[in-house]
Amino acid sequence: LIKAILFDIDNTLFPSGEFAELARRNAINAMIEAGLDADATETYAKLKKIIKKYGPNYPKHFNALLRELSMRNDPKIIAAGIVAYHQAKASIFPYPDVPKTIIQLREKGYRICVASEGRALKQWDKLIRLGLHNIFHDVFVTSRKSEKFYRSVLTKLKLKPQEIMMVGDSIEKDIRPARKLGITTVLVSSHPSKEGDYRINKISELPAIIERLEND
Amino acid sequence: LIKAILFDIDNTLFPSGEFAELARRNAINAMIEAGLDADATETYAKLKKIIKKYGPNYPKHFNALLRELSMRNDPKIIAAGIVAYHQAKASIFPYPDVPKTIIQLREKGYRICVASEGRALKQWDKLIRLGLHNIFHDVFVTSRKSEKFYRSVLTKLKLKPQEIMMVGDSIEKDIRPARKLGITTVLVSSHPSKEGDYRINKISELPAIIERLEND
Repeated sequence: LIKAILFDIDNTLFPSGEFAELARRNAINAMIEAGLDADATETYAKLKKIIKKYGPNYPKHFNALLRELSMRNDPKIIAAGIVAYHQAKASIFPYPDVPKTIIQLREKGYRICVASEGRALKQWDKLIRLGLHNIFHDVFVTSRKSEKFYRSVLTKLKLKPQEIMMVGDSIEKDIRPARKLGITTVLVSSHPSKEGDYRINKISELPAIIERLEND
Repeated sequence: LIKAILFDIDNTLFPSGEFAELARRNAINAMIEAGLDADATETYAKLKKIIKKYGPNYPKHFNALLRELSMRNDPKIIAAGIVAYHQAKASIFPYPDVPKTIIQLREKGYRICVASEGRALKQWDKLIRLGLHNIFHDVFVTSRKSEKFYRSVLTKLKLKPQEIMMVGDSIEKDIRPARKLGITTVLVSSHPSKEGDYRINKISELPAIIERLEND
């Protein structure tokens, strides 16, 4: 019997990738408006390379971008990029069915949790801006969603693997390590896949799956 | 003859103090809503002490606040404070007469500049959010508004002290060091003062003062 449901955040609760792309494109447009002499499309490709090289949590992507473009550090241009980036990232919004479905599952008595990879402050920042920070019973943030992480969540929740369901979009992070421990996994994806015990297109399909599982 | 006009940013172009207080009070309310067990008024007083102790540019005021309250570091509470703080600080707005007056002076042929104390990125961030970043010909940011700073501005503008006017709210930073060099100073203040060559209540009084000065 399922007692707790774990949700991934990025691309599960909100369209993280789309917001990140919007935020980066806005930032580049703002930097060009502030005086950066570069082509927007080429600069976007360069910025993506920089993010890949330094990782998403490096705080000076735009400084690295100016270096890459052989430009001296210009605080007007950097600030223009940061303001535009933050304005886009600050306006993240959940997938429309997410808040209702999660509240519905909570009211049915399930323990509702977040299982997220990243930095705790940054993931909480997202939950707050999504307006979801008071809906979850527990929020678990780890630097890596390994088997060890899922085992520590089981310990903290004092539950057995078969009492837990993990919902997420990443086969590598949300499905495989959880499934190895015997946790029921639900892949959120629009593409057919053999991974995960179940696959859904959107979170609102979850209550029916749980009901089916309980009746089996 | 005045050729260039220098403007201070904080409390000259926008009500910086009021926004800072609003941002801090919002942050504390958000932290209490996120689980901080403390009184809002007392916590605000503690936060003000911490800002005084560590300086306004210290990036971890809220962590220091939790330590001060003998609470362990809780990323939910810290993130709630940061989000609320940034949301308030992101919505700064210029004094209503500022944009029109500055554009009017620029169209009359004056070189319009910012002379600001702080970190370049942070001051540019404010100008961008105020929608003023494309109005100024030059933006000078220094760690300290000393005589040396004003001398370097004269050199960069290739102008004599009597060709420059400095407008700001701080006697110590905007008036005294500039006046020592012979720069015409305008104090923005609602309180009578013997400091500064002129005193105005708001920026829209500036064109009349310059006209009078030119006709003398």
